[in-house]
Amino acid sequence: MTHSIIFDTDPGVDDAQAIAIALRHPEIELLGMTTTYGNVDVEVATKNALLLAQLAGRGEVPVAQGAAAPMVKARHAPPAHIHGANGLGDIALPEVQGKADPRSAAQFIVDTVNARPGEVTLVAVGPVGNLAAALQLDPGIIDRVKGVVIMGGSIREGGNVTPVAEANMFNDPDAASRVLTAGWPLTLVGLDVTHRCVLTPAHMARIEAGQGELGKVLAGSYAFYRDFYHEFLGIDGCCPHDSCALAWLLRPELFTTARGHLTVATEGDAEGQTIFAPEGRGFIEARWSRTPVVEVCLKVDGEAVSDWIADVLA
Amino acid sequence: MTHSIIFDTDPGVDDAQAIAIALRHPEIELLGMTTTYGNVDVEVATKNALLLAQLAGRGEVPVAQGAAAPMVKARHAPPAHIHGANGLGDIALPEVQGKADPRSAAQFIVDTVNARPGEVTLVAVGPVGNLAAALQLDPGIIDRVKGVVIMGGSIREGGNVTPVAEANMFNDPDAASRVLTAGWPLTLVGLDVTHRCVLTPAHMARIEAGQGELGKVLAGSYAFYRDFYHEFLGIDGCCPHDSCALAWLLRPELFTTARGHLTVATEGDAEGQTIFAPEGRGFIEARWSRTPVVEVCLKVDGEAVSDWIADVLA
Ligand SMILES: [Ca+2]
Ligand SMILES: [Ca+2]
Repeated sequence: MTHSIIFDTDPGVDDAQAIAIALRHPEIELLGMTTTYGNVDVEVATKNALLLAQLAGRGEVPVAQGAAAPMVKARHAPPAHIHGANGLGDIALPEVQGKADPRSAAQFIVDTVNARPGEVTLVAVGPVGNLAAALQLDPGIIDRVKGVVIMGGSIREGGNVTPVAEANMFNDPDAASRVLTAGWPLTLVGLDVTHRCVLTPAHMARIEAGQGELGKVLAGSYAFYRDFYHEFLGIDGCCPHDSCALAWLLRPELFTTARGHLTVATEGDAEGQTIFAPEGRGFIEARWSRTPVVEVCLKVDGEAVSDWIADVLA
Repeated sequence: MTHSIIFDTDPGVDDAQAIAIALRHPEIELLGMTTTYGNVDVEVATKNALLLAQLAGRGEVPVAQGAAAPMVKARHAPPAHIHGANGLGDIALPEVQGKADPRSAAQFIVDTVNARPGEVTLVAVGPVGNLAAALQLDPGIIDRVKGVVIMGGSIREGGNVTPVAEANMFNDPDAASRVLTAGWPLTLVGLDVTHRCVLTPAHMARIEAGQGELGKVLAGSYAFYRDFYHEFLGIDGCCPHDSCALAWLLRPELFTTARGHLTVATEGDAEGQTIFAPEGRGFIEARWSRTPVVEVCLKVDGEAVSDWIADVLA
């Protein structure tokens, strides 16, 4: 089965790995990439998306630029110590030849979904402002997407940028609240599973060998990202967060999921937290169970996912 | 070593088990019980505390009545389906002979701590409004308690009355915020450990046999509470939440703890959640790491704790 997807992204080292999969995997039809601020400024995200497509020989893939900042709140500084100031580990990068699509990311999403109702899956691996903006332009896409896969949030794993919030959700909790409770067929791929996956230096050596010019960029940026994981988390390797969203789409049998209701805290010390109420479970008040039912990933065969990533790109 | 404690409680079936331990254990000097609303109205809590002391032949233990409601918010209805309308599984109870201390719970705590500086440990296993009220009467007790042990909250386990909040903290998040961030030597014994402990029917048979009149009340109320656990959680037995606070005090080697900063969400969908920032761990903003360092329980040898409870009361 081929999955026709729009990949919404803020590349970003682990975004770049996932983009490579989206560009290379025979069962993915990449209809376009939409870009957002997050790991980098949105202009840098757009440049990186264009560059990665170009290095993969896929310069025809449209790239549409979107949100430069959150919907409501002030923006947080990009994490240059994790992804580098250029989003790709501060390695020297080739010249970008392509140009972005003239449409906004949100318009691109709306047009593409409406052109192929029931066929397009949105895969979002950054702050989800572009999806919220698309819903603002045309709420009707809720019924016309095939599915929505979000890398973000955390159910039981705790947060990464706050004790309870994951970075993509914390970067725009208002957008997250809109997108996660929109009532479309959505799966949340959060830290509960991405923290179980480690892309090792051995995996990356295979990827570098298999991907030519693109492989050099993936390996160079990985080296920088790996330093962060080593220094701050004591892991030799890195969590391929964003690739997990595609792993879920193509290899769902490696994941354990649950159905239930998500609420996103938009204020206070829990800001950006994804609060999950399992379907059918009663609580002291009904408020946590009023949002539409979605699917969340709780467990994963992390080794199998990490191997799958390397196998796809080797 | 003898632990001189004040036991703050809302009995409650699992409170009753813990009270029995506090009354019976040779290494506990029970200076008094203070009562609060929570599992029951505060008048019922007081009556139950007096009765349990009486049935144990310990009618001399002072019982001081405290909070009838939260500090700021409206009160939630008591969970009669879990503890019974009388707090002890709706079994018939003997007449209460004793009378409560004329002082408020908060005044009793202040007087008792100040009479024996450095010697008194507060063990609180209900909503913590009495401790907050004591801090309001005399913040100086922060430096004069020996320790504070709180049954409540959850670090990674999720909540029981909301997806993220534990009942005692949810019942008065403002008091919880005051008490958990007061800067006294505090240990949080939450759902991460209490959900790992199961008091089985075999345990309770030993307790019933060992505790005479008191044993009848513990076993009768347990039978009601067990029905709840069976119906709602599919467990045969019950989690002895409140006894875990005493197990921590007397058998700390059975627990794994961590040090860090607690924040209590007082508003919004995360209301009542205890947010834990491990000591030394950096987050995107400093706000979660500004509260005083406390200790939280993360893991436990649940079987050993459950056996310990039965051994103490057998
Ligand atoms: Ca990303
Ligand atoms: Ca209690």
